[in-house]
Amino acid sequence: MKYLIVFAHPENEHSFQRSLLDHAVAQLLAAGHEVKISDLYAMDFEPVASKNDFKARRFPERLQYDREQKHAVQNEELSADITAELDKLFWCDILVMQFPLYWFSMPAIMKGWVDRVFLNSLVYGAGLRFETGGLKGKRAMVCTSTGGFDTMFSPDGLLGDMNVALWHIHHGMLHYTGFDVLPPFVAWAPVRVDDEKCGEYRDTYSKRLLESHTTQPMQFHDTADFGKDFKMSDSVMPRTVGHWRD
Amino acid sequence: MKYLIVFAHPENEHSFQRSLLDHAVAQLLAAGHEVKISDLYAMDFEPVASKNDFKARRFPERLQYDREQKHAVQNEELSADITAELDKLFWCDILVMQFPLYWFSMPAIMKGWVDRVFLNSLVYGAGLRFETGGLKGKRAMVCTSTGGFDTMFSPDGLLGDMNVALWHIHHGMLHYTGFDVLPPFVAWAPVRVDDEKCGEYRDTYSKRLLESHTTQPMQFHDTADFGKDFKMSDSVMPRTVGHWRD
Repeated sequence: MKYLIVFAHPENEHSFQRSLLDHAVAQLLAAGHEVKISDLYAMDFEPVASKNDFKARRFPERLQYDREQKHAVQNEELSADITAELDKLFWCDILVMQFPLYWFSMPAIMKGWVDRVFLNSLVYGAGLRFETGGLKGKRAMVCTSTGGFDTMFSPDGLLGDMNVALWHIHHGMLHYTGFDVLPPFVAWAPVRVDDEKCGEYRDTYSKRLLESHTTQPMQFHDTADFGKDFKMSDSVMPRTVGHWRD
Repeated sequence: MKYLIVFAHPENEHSFQRSLLDHAVAQLLAAGHEVKISDLYAMDFEPVASKNDFKARRFPERLQYDREQKHAVQNEELSADITAELDKLFWCDILVMQFPLYWFSMPAIMKGWVDRVFLNSLVYGAGLRFETGGLKGKRAMVCTSTGGFDTMFSPDGLLGDMNVALWHIHHGMLHYTGFDVLPPFVAWAPVRVDDEKCGEYRDTYSKRLLESHTTQPMQFHDTADFGKDFKMSDSVMPRTVGHWRD
């Protein structure tokens, strides 16, 4: 299996997230898998979608970012940092997005990776959505860590259901572009647990990645569940907001 | 009323979002309100949370971002761009976050504004959450625009409930830090509607901002709805995931 792990943490060397990454990568390599890492902080990755992403423009007078993406794909006029990420993205069998949870979402540097690399006409766009998305046939998995405990992130917990918090990523970024989305790995409150528990997190994460080709994906709705009016058929209601629990 | 509008669009001059902003600001000023704008693209705002955000460090050997935030607040060692945003944030009565919807969320440059400006010990942290959050007494409102139509973003629509998509912002960023969260203003598919409809969007948005001091906030749960185990009391179930429809 070919793994692309996109990693973002402001403490690049001594963080718990880094120890998760190092442990998992060692296990994957030992098992004969191929691994590429986009270490966004180490790369000083540019997160801001802008006109600088295109070497030439179809509409120079007014930036329409998605239309310029399509034009730049057709004419090979994307900036080099985007092309490099795109090559890794299409190379991989499984994309892992690994980050500490910042404000119920990913850190800005990783959001920028999605904004800039998920390109119109290749990853999404006309004819490219859900089961026909540009990344269909690939798997994706979020690995994150929290400040709060598991119980706080339950449907009846203080912070609400983690499935709802991650919906914009699981459904909006990953399912939307065609991935089979695996249940996330969440290390709950690593700064509040002991070393033994942190070791357990490392082992579990490695195991999750090693088993990822046989893991049952989360359930999301595909186009066939909706009518021509984009409304869900009565037979498939009620809607599933992903679903997963440890 | 004092309005802070944080604005992010890669086409800074000729976008529909810019026309929304210009129209609304003119109306607010004409009505005697005070307005400050953080125009993130024009400012070339730095979105990446990093060690560069602190002029001095409490723990130089290992970056713990939230702890350094607290230390830098106490010792006035925050980088100048963060301090400038913080001053505007605490000055305002209402925060407006205005952006085109990118991947069911905000563009990276605005996520970075939240990551860096919502500071531990001032905005969130010990004793600062929900009704006691650092921004309590203020109001907040999202203004966004979509590629898809209204009906697609309904609970039974192809793209799912917009309330769920925005939950990480409404609940995780705004309600969490103490704001009263107003229903969002969404301009549905501005590139697919005619000029008249775009004009309507501008008028409605301006009206929404002018009326924002009397608008009924969305309903979210406060600490009193939960027990000491952080679980919701039976009497307040089931949970509300925000709730709002045009």
